[in-house]
Amino acid sequence: MPSLRTIGENGLLRKILPLLPQRPEVRVGPGDDCAVVRVAGSADDWLFTTDPVIERRHFLPETPARLVGRKAIARAVSDVAAMGGTPLWILVDLVAPAATPLARIRGLFAGMIAAARKWDLAILGGDTAEGDVLELHVAGVGRVPRGTAVLRSGARAGDLVFVTGALGGAYLPGSRHHLLFEPRLEAGRFLAENKFATAMMDLSDGLAADLPRLLDASRRGVRLEAAAIPLSRAARATPHPLHHALCDGEDFELLFTVAPRNRARFASAWQRKFPRLPATCIGKILADPKRRTLVLPTGVSAPFRPGGYQHFLPHPKA
Amino acid sequence: MPSLRTIGENGLLRKILPLLPQRPEVRVGPGDDCAVVRVAGSADDWLFTTDPVIERRHFLPETPARLVGRKAIARAVSDVAAMGGTPLWILVDLVAPAATPLARIRGLFAGMIAAARKWDLAILGGDTAEGDVLELHVAGVGRVPRGTAVLRSGARAGDLVFVTGALGGAYLPGSRHHLLFEPRLEAGRFLAENKFATAMMDLSDGLAADLPRLLDASRRGVRLEAAAIPLSRAARATPHPLHHALCDGEDFELLFTVAPRNRARFASAWQRKFPRLPATCIGKILADPKRRTLVLPTGVSAPFRPGGYQHFLPHPKA
Repeated sequence: MPSLRTIGENGLLRKILPLLPQRPEVRVGPGDDCAVVRVAGSADDWLFTTDPVIERRHFLPETPARLVGRKAIARAVSDVAAMGGTPLWILVDLVAPAATPLARIRGLFAGMIAAARKWDLAILGGDTAEGDVLELHVAGVGRVPRGTAVLRSGARAGDLVFVTGALGGAYLPGSRHHLLFEPRLEAGRFLAENKFATAMMDLSDGLAADLPRLLDASRRGVRLEAAAIPLSRAARATPHPLHHALCDGEDFELLFTVAPRNRARFASAWQRKFPRLPATCIGKILADPKRRTLVLPTGVSAPFRPGGYQHFLPHPKA
Repeated sequence: MPSLRTIGENGLLRKILPLLPQRPEVRVGPGDDCAVVRVAGSADDWLFTTDPVIERRHFLPETPARLVGRKAIARAVSDVAAMGGTPLWILVDLVAPAATPLARIRGLFAGMIAAARKWDLAILGGDTAEGDVLELHVAGVGRVPRGTAVLRSGARAGDLVFVTGALGGAYLPGSRHHLLFEPRLEAGRFLAENKFATAMMDLSDGLAADLPRLLDASRRGVRLEAAAIPLSRAARATPHPLHHALCDGEDFELLFTVAPRNRARFASAWQRKFPRLPATCIGKILADPKRRTLVLPTGVSAPFRPGGYQHFLPHPKA
């Protein structure tokens, strides 16, 4: 009997997303980092996203509760950042076993409350329910000036592919990046306001999983330069840093494309605005959606195949 | 070590809700059926709610998947109805084991899609994650004409307490009310538009759990007439119909209060508009928040104590 394991998260989304009912005011429905809704008379478009954070999937029983709470909020903030928007309001479903120590629940909320203050968010409420493991389901709402949300679908042939920061190893021993990452809120707004980014998303499942999603949405191919991919310190400490940079997930860096004519202007403006945050060109968008090439550090070209993390599929350890 | 079981859902909410950060545009934060947000220049206020639907808590493994999907959407619709609003947009987090048969997932979405069409909602997206049991977390957004949302906090001394429909037994054998209930969307809007309801909420955890929440929010007491409480057919088929009507939960009827000077006008307008849906007066609001009385069918008065369903507390079977 076919199960979720048979088709994976991507297969499920391909089947389901086209069926979901929409309404005329919905500008961008399911499939991007946020949905975009335009309401008559508003100077802003509204952004909507949800993110689950589940024990033994997104954190461990021994992970400090404050950091779990922080992560749950930061994931939603990162989705809004990936559209070039500003997050405003959060709702939280808490699922927990009845035996959960109160201290742990207090820690979760302390982490969420501190994160909400940091990013100037209101926590509007939510709901609680008993369940077998600890879970937080965060719904986030943000705004972006009307018509300026940056979608996954805007990449054009010749555009340059960039990532912020460094990739890989968010979960490796010694790294707590998956808990302590900084959503690229300022960077996302800067890229949207200045119209530098033609397409954008955040890296949550690894470059090898997420870049193909941007390419599919834009109906384009890519030539990716492995040697150019910025490697995190944690990834560089392993025997296979490139594998980690491509496949680990939870980088929460921005992946975006820039038109070649804007390259110089973008580079100097970025350098002025974010002197300590690298934005690295890692490849180029190709017209043919079937041409997806990874140029290895040796100079040999290999097919760039989707990889990284996908829910419901078995994941062999690296 | 104190746990969630020590303090229950109400205890948790009392501790946490006052700490959650707010923003100036938030008119009603956590603690009502929906949060209410007012955005400059908009003719509407925005309503936000979330609802979890979890296997073995809100449905069983053998419950038809379409009905589970319907229920997940209908719960959020009921929360919007309880403010007098109109639901517009839905986001869904799906949690499922990788071994979940695809047919079951298709059923869930078929139920959600049919429900979204029925109530003219867009499903904006959401997220998916692997987990140990099947769960749907629905975030719902609605609108209500500016300043007209009906809150839990508006009941005044002398107001009459009403419920729609009949209560109890939503889970009893032979009843599938907890799956097939009709959110009281038209009734909620009618009560808000005509300013009949001074306070309102939906009954999700049972009258004995929910009425005290309305009284606490309004800082009022009540004199509840047990003989007046409308009993569902399922509840009437049991030896303890009143117990079921007070404590079962998942009625998803509206509980609301009406000023005594509007009683006659309300009754005749209701009868014209909803000839087949009873609205029954079951008691009266008292000024003193400590006076909460249940007049039993025998005429004897007993203290009206909070009961019904509360997450994290042990629940002896009736």
